[in-house]
Amino acid sequence: MSEGTVFVGTKPIMNYVLATLTQFNEGATKVVIKARGKAISRAVDVAEIVRNRFLPNVDVTSIKIDTEELESEQGRKVNVSTIEITLEKKEE
Amino acid sequence: MSEGTVFVGTKPIMNYVLATLTQFNEGATKVVIKARGKAISRAVDVAEIVRNRFLPNVDVTSIKIDTEELESEQGRKVNVSTIEITLEKKEE
Repeated sequence: MSEGTVFVGTKPIMNYVLATLTQFNEGATKVVIKARGKAISRAVDVAEIVRNRFLPNVDVTSIKIDTEELESEQGRKVNVSTIEITLEKKEE
Repeated sequence: MSEGTVFVGTKPIMNYVLATLTQFNEGATKVVIKARGKAISRAVDVAEIVRNRFLPNVDVTSIKIDTEELESEQGRKVNVSTIEITLEKKEE
């Protein structure tokens, strides 16, 4: 059972949709879509588009949120929220 | 067992944090934080700030994502992602 990961950033959403589809096509049974900060809403868009438009046999099996502490360029500590959305192929 | 709801939009994040804290203080054992589109990342921030900074006895017990179809002013149909994050007081 192979597992893939897609990090969602600031590129067009369809790039990440395609990356996810590619990982499933190459044999992944599970792909984890990860994002931080403002990209979180885009990660949800990616999961919803994959599931509704392209792969109806894929389910959201887990969603986790968390906080990461980053250091800014000025050395200040900044908290940033994170999300991990797990998509899995349904058993046939 | 009383249940509250907080809709996260474009106001400062602390407004929604305070709204959530108020609902717990007024006796809610469960508060559902809801958001659409770009506000989704802010809803995650609200849940994380409530849990990490103010109410360590509150857990994220469920996160759901979905898609809603809205009609734009031009009558065009637009899909928008949604999130619902459920915070619940732990049993003492």
